[in-house]
Amino acid sequence: MTIKLGIIGAGRVGRLHANTLTTRIPGAKTLVVADIFKDAAKSAAEDYGIPDFTTDPSELIGSGDVDAIVICSSTDTHCRFIIEAARAGKQIFCEKPIAFDLAEIDEALAAVDEAGVQLQIGFNRRFDANHARVKQAIERGEIGEAHTMTIISRDPAPPPIDYIKVSGGLMMDMMIHDFDLSRFLLGEVEEIYALGDVKVDPAIGEAGDIDTAKVMLRFESGAFGSIENSRQAVYGYDQRVEVFGSKGAATTGNWHPNAVTISDAMSVRRDLPLHFFVERYFESYVSEMIAFVDAIANGKTVPVVGNDGRVPVVMAMAGMRSLRENRPVRLDEAEV
Amino acid sequence: MTIKLGIIGAGRVGRLHANTLTTRIPGAKTLVVADIFKDAAKSAAEDYGIPDFTTDPSELIGSGDVDAIVICSSTDTHCRFIIEAARAGKQIFCEKPIAFDLAEIDEALAAVDEAGVQLQIGFNRRFDANHARVKQAIERGEIGEAHTMTIISRDPAPPPIDYIKVSGGLMMDMMIHDFDLSRFLLGEVEEIYALGDVKVDPAIGEAGDIDTAKVMLRFESGAFGSIENSRQAVYGYDQRVEVFGSKGAATTGNWHPNAVTISDAMSVRRDLPLHFFVERYFESYVSEMIAFVDAIANGKTVPVVGNDGRVPVVMAMAGMRSLRENRPVRLDEAEV
Amino acid sequence: MTIKLGIIGAGRVGRLHANTLTTRIPGAKTLVVADIFKDAAKSAAEDYGIPDFTTDPSELIGSGDVDAIVICSSTDTHCRFIIEAARAGKQIFCEKPIAFDLAEIDEALAAVDEAGVQLQIGFNRRFDANHARVKQAIERGEIGEAHTMTIISRDPAPPPIDYIKVSGGLMMDMMIHDFDLSRFLLGEVEEIYALGDVKVDPAIGEAGDIDTAKVMLRFESGAFGSIENSRQAVYGYDQRVEVFGSKGAATTGNWHPNAVTISDAMSVRRDLPLHFFVERYFESYVSEMIAFVDAIANGKTVPVVGNDGRVPVVMAMAGMRSLRENRPVRLDEAEV
Amino acid sequence: MTIKLGIIGAGRVGRLHANTLTTRIPGAKTLVVADIFKDAAKSAAEDYGIPDFTTDPSELIGSGDVDAIVICSSTDTHCRFIIEAARAGKQIFCEKPIAFDLAEIDEALAAVDEAGVQLQIGFNRRFDANHARVKQAIERGEIGEAHTMTIISRDPAPPPIDYIKVSGGLMMDMMIHDFDLSRFLLGEVEEIYALGDVKVDPAIGEAGDIDTAKVMLRFESGAFGSIENSRQAVYGYDQRVEVFGSKGAATTGNWHPNAVTISDAMSVRRDLPLHFFVERYFESYVSEMIAFVDAIANGKTVPVVGNDGRVPVVMAMAGMRSLRENRPVRLDEAEV
Repeated sequence: MTIKLGIIGAGRVGRLHANTLTTRIPGAKTLVVADIFKDAAKSAAEDYGIPDFTTDPSELIGSGDVDAIVICSSTDTHCRFIIEAARAGKQIFCEKPIAFDLAEIDEALAAVDEAGVQLQIGFNRRFDANHARVKQAIERGEIGEAHTMTIISRDPAPPPIDYIKVSGGLMMDMMIHDFDLSRFLLGEVEEIYALGDVKVDPAIGEAGDIDTAKVMLRFESGAFGSIENSRQAVYGYDQRVEVFGSKGAATTGNWHPNAVTISDAMSVRRDLPLHFFVERYFESYVSEMIAFVDAIANGKTVPVVGNDGRVPVVMAMAGMRSLRENRPVRLDEAEV
Repeated sequence: MTIKLGIIGAGRVGRLHANTLTTRIPGAKTLVVADIFKDAAKSAAEDYGIPDFTTDPSELIGSGDVDAIVICSSTDTHCRFIIEAARAGKQIFCEKPIAFDLAEIDEALAAVDEAGVQLQIGFNRRFDANHARVKQAIERGEIGEAHTMTIISRDPAPPPIDYIKVSGGLMMDMMIHDFDLSRFLLGEVEEIYALGDVKVDPAIGEAGDIDTAKVMLRFESGAFGSIENSRQAVYGYDQRVEVFGSKGAATTGNWHPNAVTISDAMSVRRDLPLHFFVERYFESYVSEMIAFVDAIANGKTVPVVGNDGRVPVVMAMAGMRSLRENRPVRLDEAEV
Repeated sequence: MTIKLGIIGAGRVGRLHANTLTTRIPGAKTLVVADIFKDAAKSAAEDYGIPDFTTDPSELIGSGDVDAIVICSSTDTHCRFIIEAARAGKQIFCEKPIAFDLAEIDEALAAVDEAGVQLQIGFNRRFDANHARVKQAIERGEIGEAHTMTIISRDPAPPPIDYIKVSGGLMMDMMIHDFDLSRFLLGEVEEIYALGDVKVDPAIGEAGDIDTAKVMLRFESGAFGSIENSRQAVYGYDQRVEVFGSKGAATTGNWHPNAVTISDAMSVRRDLPLHFFVERYFESYVSEMIAFVDAIANGKTVPVVGNDGRVPVVMAMAGMRSLRENRPVRLDEAEV
Repeated sequence: MTIKLGIIGAGRVGRLHANTLTTRIPGAKTLVVADIFKDAAKSAAEDYGIPDFTTDPSELIGSGDVDAIVICSSTDTHCRFIIEAARAGKQIFCEKPIAFDLAEIDEALAAVDEAGVQLQIGFNRRFDANHARVKQAIERGEIGEAHTMTIISRDPAPPPIDYIKVSGGLMMDMMIHDFDLSRFLLGEVEEIYALGDVKVDPAIGEAGDIDTAKVMLRFESGAFGSIENSRQAVYGYDQRVEVFGSKGAATTGNWHPNAVTISDAMSVRRDLPLHFFVERYFESYVSEMIAFVDAIANGKTVPVVGNDGRVPVVMAMAGMRSLRENRPVRLDEAEV
């Protein structure tokens, strides 16, 4: 059975999914791509051999030919399209974060429930070979009961200030991936304490955001976690996690473009890690979409459900409140 | 410009190229696949969305629609198809080795020359990120003048004895890749000394072959090289090379399925390396085909020419003679 | 000039220093060792070729032959011996922590000041090749301005419960080394937030202590730090630190007893890291004592002064208060 | 029981053993050091607290107080002192190589046998933690039956030309350690094929020596080995070995002065490996001497006997003949 899809949003991530869906997933057929900018929609259609394009997402959602909608438009439009697609009976894949506002999210999730369709959230890192192996180590009991988790997650360079302004801030835009990974690995968090500041670029501060943060998590299981984010690691994308437990530890390293060591009179060195998420997580973007298409085609539950999109937003809100008030904040406080 | 291709041979490597050509190379269109076994041809066509199939390679070669032929049939048929394709004016990609017999190879290369078509040989490892990085280190001068080269190349498990019998032997079938890599990295070799024996499976010896070898190379440049092959590394595919020079060394490691370290009460360990060539060299199979299609489409010279297919066969012959006579053998002796 | 020393305390660390002083430091001559247990004093004297022993530390301190006193007795006796030695005009080396009580510490430091002698505190990790290299990376500007620090510090197994009871607790006994390392690398800390619990052994909880902790530091420089401690890493002593800055990162790994990788059908593995502090930090114990003897002999300032012993005690107090009150605690609050 | 020793030769290695014997080995007492240069003898005595010195080695050998003689003088004097010491009933430690001439060696070994004393040869690398771990992997069966061995052994820089001239040549002076290591790991060798040339410094060629070599070994067990030597690795001392077998492989890496990785905008790098043998093999020098003193004191057989000193000389002779004649040479040919 072939799943027929429409993609909303032909920006960087929309094009990435268009590429993946048209080349790597035999069971998927992308029929149409929508973008409010006609040129973007058209060039995505041409570049990835998608038969049709439109500037009207609603037209795409309304198309009888399409089984599933992949939402990659700007965050402020996510909930609207989710609701529209759910009411049209479409299966839905939506990029993270769902929204910055809990009421809006809850409305969208309710629409999904009512329609009896499925919604998968684009937390692709769960599908990364490293993170999946750590999860497996936990599940297999290789490291016993988990006591602590340490995530280090650094971008190679900050996004443009214009993006920063609409991003929801570092915790909602960047650390949200690490909040998801924390839950994926060790379950629910009950309290967060955050340190954050502007260390990379004052313009980020002027835009009301931070670029460096270190956050402490208290899990419901009793485990402790920490997450560190920086918008700029000059050596490239730094994506590591360690889970330590009663029987051992699982520790990930970065991926490099090659496994070559050069020894010369100065040092013993490797080339820099894979530069950014497109390189580092390409295969996990493929895998999440394979999983989505497979779930839709075979009537399985999608692997990252609506609530998995909601909770990290609550965590980001708790983190931001902790920053403002310089105290640990419980997730139930952030819910209010 | 789209290049239209026909694939001859729907075995393991033929299917691999079919997969690559149909999913990863937008500028290529595979029209037809041929295999003397109808079921193999048919299922490859179905699995990879190839419009047509045939049990008659000549029909495929003769088709006016096809620009280029990808030859993945058994080694004994390579030269015949090369000649036929050349005479039909087709561009040619042929798997390694071209043949086990020099006279046959020379006839095929002459036909290619006469027809003015191009022939690319399937030495895909040149396109591997590790080997390419070592080459780059040499070319950039990062390690100065090359003094020595050490290749360790071990398969996870021997092929079936039936394959061993028609393989041409370890040096023609397996070490031929390392002979190619040696030339790729350090240029022509003038003399070879070989040690070889049966250490893995006596049945390999009964089939007239060896399963373990260690070979010394004297390059024309004056550099020294060694190659080690084993048909069985229980920990998986082991593919490493080091080039050492006046200003340093470039050393490759293996690729693992993840970059996770598990520490427990027994050891600090990683999962085994990628199991075999399909996993380890998948991207280099893609890259060699991208390069082939690009060369054909844009009138460039293909990156691995006929003579690059011929010389490693001479090297294998010199190596086998060295084994029989327990002395270093010059390549010009093997030519005779 | 040879420095003549007396050692107080012939327990594990006292014997370690006796070994170091008698075999690795030509400029030092250890004349006498004191322990309230005669057998301990006697056997240390015999084992390390120390001419004399006594059960009376005051006799040792009062000896006219001795230039310097090395205090390795139990923590509750440190201040008493420091004061006594200072008044006797001796140079002093004292193990960490100085004491658990700030008033007591201040009295001892005042006695040292008054006497015009020097006091070096046994924070040996500063002399470890890894930590020193991270410090050097910061000082040389290799990693730019420091933004964050992450310490992971885990023991292979908890000490006996009887020791736990008099240890001052995990933060005063174990994390104090990491507090010192934090200051050594990034300067003074102004606020601490701590999570801590009993995860390894309930008996540790019954003794009023914790065995697992994760602590957040806000440095005066604006940098953020985290420290993780566990009393039990089943794979051995785990001692790592990373400092991340505007131009890069310096990251340490553990030391293993050999640099051998074993690849077999199950995994690619190394032997466990060096088991505990005696193995891991042996050379740093040597180096701190070389530095002490050199400073005394040549009239230099010792490299780890009294205040370097005092501040980590304040940090431990702030950490313990943070644990009790579940809020970030400033160091000036702990001072009160 | 304390063993009383005299050291002959106060050059670099003689001083190294003097240091080791006087600081690290409680059961040894060095009474006297001899060197034909009075200043060298005197300063070694002073620097290491050795009570006596002499310019007359025979006086030292004849001393009734001395139990054992450590011979670190120039190679041409080794056999003379061995014979003299054996006749005086002394236990003997002698640096490698025993001599360059087999007849001379056999005379010395006969004298040792006749006198019923013990002779240990200074092949210290057997005591190195890495090499010992590889040996252990073989003995424990961790890697099954050994099929191949690969040694890479490179010095950071060539010795002075004056030393080259009296060194016996690269194979006798440098590769002899690797010949010993080969035998230590995989047993006796029956045939050697060698490539060698001058690549580092023409002056080495003018002195009649080579500076780069790659050698193939056929072991009696049927295993194959290769050894690579270079007099100059610009990145420092490179000392690695891999043994590959039916159940896996044991592979050593180099030791670095610290386990720190620096990541910056250019690369992810480590400091260079430990520079040369004094740094890299210091602990193995200590361990071989501990083993010698222990064997003498407790009537055990020394761990590296006279024949262990003789065979690598035969191997070097076979290697040199192989170089001259460009063919594999059996060890029994070199014996003649």
